[in-house]
Amino acid sequence: MADSMVVFWGSGSPPCWRVMIALEEKLLSGYQRRLLSFEKQQHKSKEVLAINPRGQLPTFRHGDVVLNESYGVCIYLENQFKSQGAELIPSCPTEQAGVLQRMFEVQTLQEKMGIVIYYKWRVPENEQHDTAVERNKKALSVELKLWEGYMEKASPEPYIMGKNFTMADVMLFPQLAYGVRFALSQEKYPKLLEYYHRLEKRPSIQASWPPHWKESAPTSDILKDI
Amino acid sequence: MADSMVVFWGSGSPPCWRVMIALEEKLLSGYQRRLLSFEKQQHKSKEVLAINPRGQLPTFRHGDVVLNESYGVCIYLENQFKSQGAELIPSCPTEQAGVLQRMFEVQTLQEKMGIVIYYKWRVPENEQHDTAVERNKKALSVELKLWEGYMEKASPEPYIMGKNFTMADVMLFPQLAYGVRFALSQEKYPKLLEYYHRLEKRPSIQASWPPHWKESAPTSDILKDI
Repeated sequence: MADSMVVFWGSGSPPCWRVMIALEEKLLSGYQRRLLSFEKQQHKSKEVLAINPRGQLPTFRHGDVVLNESYGVCIYLENQFKSQGAELIPSCPTEQAGVLQRMFEVQTLQEKMGIVIYYKWRVPENEQHDTAVERNKKALSVELKLWEGYMEKASPEPYIMGKNFTMADVMLFPQLAYGVRFALSQEKYPKLLEYYHRLEKRPSIQASWPPHWKESAPTSDILKDI
Repeated sequence: MADSMVVFWGSGSPPCWRVMIALEEKLLSGYQRRLLSFEKQQHKSKEVLAINPRGQLPTFRHGDVVLNESYGVCIYLENQFKSQGAELIPSCPTEQAGVLQRMFEVQTLQEKMGIVIYYKWRVPENEQHDTAVERNKKALSVELKLWEGYMEKASPEPYIMGKNFTMADVMLFPQLAYGVRFALSQEKYPKLLEYYHRLEKRPSIQASWPPHWKESAPTSDILKDI
């Protein structure tokens, strides 16, 4: 089944990583990987644009099925392979609601982290303002404190929703790891960093670790004071 | 079952409206509605913040279950009431993938529309730039053209994914209606506007129509030239 699946991905992209962790957790590690270079703009190539008009990664194919939205891919995999590998979205209504809640909250973390990390890259120089940078950093700090609190509440259970690894972890871990790559502070977010170090050795996560992160240091420590 | 459900909502908010359409489609119209005023900052009240730390609407309760993320609520309702009312996420893998893809793409439409509509409200005056306004409008126009193309491709079928009303419509309709409220052009997006007029009379949509939209004209026609 997995050999009819292809993932077009970019190294270090949290949305790509989510999909790859979900594939590993659902025991679909035989899928084809097509690593593309953001630097070389390969995600804007004709081949990708033909099936993904926004030219974003990941792009996922399963036979004739094409899905480009990382949340959509993960939910599709869980639905289609419900009883295979880890149960990522529990059936119990209360647990399911908890997992769905945290899964989608990660989108806010992603947004607030992205605004800080990509500011100089996304905003033209003559439109940049120190006041905006400060405001964005403050908003990210508020968001991170919320997650630190969630993690404290989950403790001593190992995962964000308690004793089981779920889709909430599939979404959260790559985003948090992205933060760690940009020097997120262990001192300020001890529970989040503990969680990071507890999960980084998980086989599904190791198997999909961004290759260029193993070879090169981060280009910025922009989150160190957040 | 529905009488153990409560929705805290704000009139005109697409995320609230999604949840309310899903509730109607799943034949759960007996839920309790708690209309809050954004103007009066009721979404930042203690009662809301106690179950929703970001102070955003909607907030949904089902017995002891609390869910604040609109996508999470809609998926929860579909999973818990699978065989009740409309099947919003089809079981067939190909159809399911299509619906999931469009559902999550609506988040990009929401983001790009929000950046244009809320610019003057969100960005402090001394940080506003005409160049940013133009760039944001252009990005929204590209996004809307993509959706106009999707709708053209779906035609003559009535819904975004073909012959059935699905979760993709639950997500898309309120966002598009928001655009129409801010004067989205019938001339430039004829297929989207046809779809809007075809769906606006649907019972689930009528039953959840933003009440203040019936009473007052929009405060801005900001999208008329997009």
